[in-house]
Amino acid sequence: MNSTISKRGFLQAVGAAAGVGAVYRTMEALGLAGPGTARAAAPDLRRGSGKGRSVAILGAGIAGMTAAWELSKAGYRCTVLEATGRAGGRNLTARAGDAIGEADSRQRVAFDAGGHLYANLGPARIPHHHRAILGYCKEFGVPLEVFTNDNRAALLHNLERFGGQPVTARRAMADIRGYIAELLAKAVGANALDDALTAEDKERVLDMLARYGDLNEDRLYRGTKRGGYRGERVNAGLKAGAFDDPLDFGELLESDFWRYKLHFDDFLDQSPTLLQPVGGMDAIVATFEKRVGRLVRRRRVVEEIRRTPQGVRIVHRPGAGGAAAALDADFAICTIPAPVLKDIPSDFSPETRAAIGSVAFVPAVKIAFQTRRRFWEDDHAIYGGISWTDQDITQIWYPPYGYHRGEGVIVGAYIWDEKPGLRFQGMTPEDRLRAAAAEGERVHPGYAAEIVSGISRAWGKVPFQKGAWPVPDEPPEALRRPDGAVYFAGDQVSALPGWQEGAALSAHAAVEAIGRRAMRK
Amino acid sequence: MNSTISKRGFLQAVGAAAGVGAVYRTMEALGLAGPGTARAAAPDLRRGSGKGRSVAILGAGIAGMTAAWELSKAGYRCTVLEATGRAGGRNLTARAGDAIGEADSRQRVAFDAGGHLYANLGPARIPHHHRAILGYCKEFGVPLEVFTNDNRAALLHNLERFGGQPVTARRAMADIRGYIAELLAKAVGANALDDALTAEDKERVLDMLARYGDLNEDRLYRGTKRGGYRGERVNAGLKAGAFDDPLDFGELLESDFWRYKLHFDDFLDQSPTLLQPVGGMDAIVATFEKRVGRLVRRRRVVEEIRRTPQGVRIVHRPGAGGAAAALDADFAICTIPAPVLKDIPSDFSPETRAAIGSVAFVPAVKIAFQTRRRFWEDDHAIYGGISWTDQDITQIWYPPYGYHRGEGVIVGAYIWDEKPGLRFQGMTPEDRLRAAAAEGERVHPGYAAEIVSGISRAWGKVPFQKGAWPVPDEPPEALRRPDGAVYFAGDQVSALPGWQEGAALSAHAAVEAIGRRAMRK
Repeated sequence: MNSTISKRGFLQAVGAAAGVGAVYRTMEALGLAGPGTARAAAPDLRRGSGKGRSVAILGAGIAGMTAAWELSKAGYRCTVLEATGRAGGRNLTARAGDAIGEADSRQRVAFDAGGHLYANLGPARIPHHHRAILGYCKEFGVPLEVFTNDNRAALLHNLERFGGQPVTARRAMADIRGYIAELLAKAVGANALDDALTAEDKERVLDMLARYGDLNEDRLYRGTKRGGYRGERVNAGLKAGAFDDPLDFGELLESDFWRYKLHFDDFLDQSPTLLQPVGGMDAIVATFEKRVGRLVRRRRVVEEIRRTPQGVRIVHRPGAGGAAAALDADFAICTIPAPVLKDIPSDFSPETRAAIGSVAFVPAVKIAFQTRRRFWEDDHAIYGGISWTDQDITQIWYPPYGYHRGEGVIVGAYIWDEKPGLRFQGMTPEDRLRAAAAEGERVHPGYAAEIVSGISRAWGKVPFQKGAWPVPDEPPEALRRPDGAVYFAGDQVSALPGWQEGAALSAHAAVEAIGRRAMRK
Repeated sequence: MNSTISKRGFLQAVGAAAGVGAVYRTMEALGLAGPGTARAAAPDLRRGSGKGRSVAILGAGIAGMTAAWELSKAGYRCTVLEATGRAGGRNLTARAGDAIGEADSRQRVAFDAGGHLYANLGPARIPHHHRAILGYCKEFGVPLEVFTNDNRAALLHNLERFGGQPVTARRAMADIRGYIAELLAKAVGANALDDALTAEDKERVLDMLARYGDLNEDRLYRGTKRGGYRGERVNAGLKAGAFDDPLDFGELLESDFWRYKLHFDDFLDQSPTLLQPVGGMDAIVATFEKRVGRLVRRRRVVEEIRRTPQGVRIVHRPGAGGAAAALDADFAICTIPAPVLKDIPSDFSPETRAAIGSVAFVPAVKIAFQTRRRFWEDDHAIYGGISWTDQDITQIWYPPYGYHRGEGVIVGAYIWDEKPGLRFQGMTPEDRLRAAAAEGERVHPGYAAEIVSGISRAWGKVPFQKGAWPVPDEPPEALRRPDGAVYFAGDQVSALPGWQEGAALSAHAAVEAIGRRAMRK
């Protein structure tokens, strides 16, 4: 009898006896659990291990509330100082009647009331592999639904291409694939890649390309039904006719579609499945607030961050005119965005200061419109997803929920490039809506007349925020380390800028570091 | 002043004055409304135009009920003869306690009760451009949510490739793109395509390929973060490390992934957005039943279809042993599937008979399992979507709803190829479940032990159905025409075999043809 057992055989035996969970743990133990299999790994501080210890948490965004939740479970006394009147930070959902303030303006959301009439003005999607934030959604019972990036009925629009007419994503994607497959098949067929491919590979590559691009028998691309049928129906209907002619290859090459818009959903954090809380992203805020809201002191503006023999002293003030107060704590977790933090007097080291000063934030702008009619569904069969234009508004998002209801809320602009971001940021709220409607009109003629009301958010003008997310993909090293008793957190100290996952992971890291240090103290 | 106005300028003026709806109708009038813009075009028979006229509708599936609804609105007296005890036909959702009968077996659905514990054993997705069926969903207020085909966390599995280990869709898709881009860039760089590309095109194509496949500076594919980071997290986390090595190109070529599994969502009827009714596809049946259920006579097996001077006589019988009865009508709409219809005595012309006899149906099999735990979410971050294997079960579907609930119902097999379909069809229901669990085990070790109960549907064995959908993509011409007063309907007379849209469109066509003929009579 064979005295060895294959890994697979062993795992199957474990599975049969004890289920996938046991297999998973066994695979982890054997180092076989592949990428993507990691469960949410929230810090697991010993219950009561924080007893008698205090933490000042600066900012009640996702990072701050995550830290407060994890630390308070372990017995730490947490105080969260929040500069604004609300928790959540950039996790902000706008609904009927909400006030949206910026440094020099105040808007009132004039949407109609209704569970499907909201706009996530900050984060709006959760990638399936963002397991820390999804772990909280599961733990706290936040209902989730699919968020749609990729919709082949959505439009791609360049002012100077295709006569300024939008084309459907379906056609552009099918055609690019087809042309690439045809070109490569031509090169392979002409033996131009014989040094790279064996004779056997060549045959397989040719077969593969024919499928990849839906080439004809001569291995030429002459359009494909993948791009839709010509005429009143996209699908084959009762009797399939001809499919649409391919788009001109030269025009496609001159468009900006291929730069990233056509493969946007291949990007790791944009690839399906994406999820969203039902009814608005701030369901996550609400569920954290239920647990740690009592620890949050609102309208407490941090004015100084100082070292003390005990650890840290935070000087804060309840808005202009109020009396300054000091909060002493053993530790602090600072989630204040770098563009704000850099102007707060502190005892940070020169290196820390330099690091904070080096992190610029993106001046992103989001604009949402309520329309009187879901014209994108009625007229274009667009159910969710994103249209792209090379105008400043960049994107139009169609809601992936509330299908077939009378009215809807769309994102009429989502701008992150600096120049257009600053242009829209510099406008009055009224001018932003007007400009976005005018640009949208070129994507959807008649658009402006469908709009009932709108709201904008220029994150660069938001007090205590001053930007949407850090420009660099990775934070400066100095912010990954504590400065004295102060730990830095927020997406700004993660490699996931602009994602709630980065905020949650950074909070976990800070919590774990404090836990380790507290054990040594 | 210029006396002409551009089409765009004109449309913008219309839009500004009257909204997208007006623009849309103007575009239609000008012949400018592109594909995909067609609204649901249900027949618009004049109210009362069917008064005094009768229609026998054979079959209470989607086609039959659509016809009954449209005709009865116009005043036709409709009688729907349904052979089974339920309406809906192949639109079948299994829930706790349901009985699922086949020619030689009867299964009881042992799922737990719960709105998220159901299986659509027939149609399960609605493409966004299936506007007839979506039109009814809108008209009748059927709530919809996203159905997910494409999930980059889902798995691709070949028994003989990659050591029999599944790979994630994310990696396989990124790697195929990368290798294709590298090869083509090599050919273009070596001037092998100079006859096909201008010098300017060449530069653009090279730029495009670098983006397309995420090539490195030397235009080589060495993996991409699109495929996920190495280690415990797929995403960059706090500090991005190395990304996964690309899969071996030779193994990829030898796998069957590229044949269509990697671009399944590029197929027109499988491309995003796909939708499903919340809580089960039979919500569509229920909403039709509310409107035309009173017209349906259940358990009425059609035994003869005869011509009469008036139009048509349908001889039917209430199951074995009951007394035969005759239904006379001016017209009939026959939705009986060809494999059943071919054995029913009729006065059809030889041409019609030959056409009916020529339409074979696919012996598709679906198997659904309830599991005690949503291990695909917990262990693999798979939220909805489809995994593929080259074993007979073909696919595993993860539910795109009920996320993070304790238990779930997955599709454990969806087989449409003839050989494996017939193999599973030939098994007892118990054996089907056992076989599907064993194959699933190779995709997800531990799978079988997670299963609580299961149900199978072999459509080839379903009485009065005898198959899942027609093999040919287009029906024989003879079935597109009436035979005497009998009009044929169902997906079998459309170019959308297996889709509810084909059923609805065919019903519309029959209704319109009857409407035209009734006007002449």
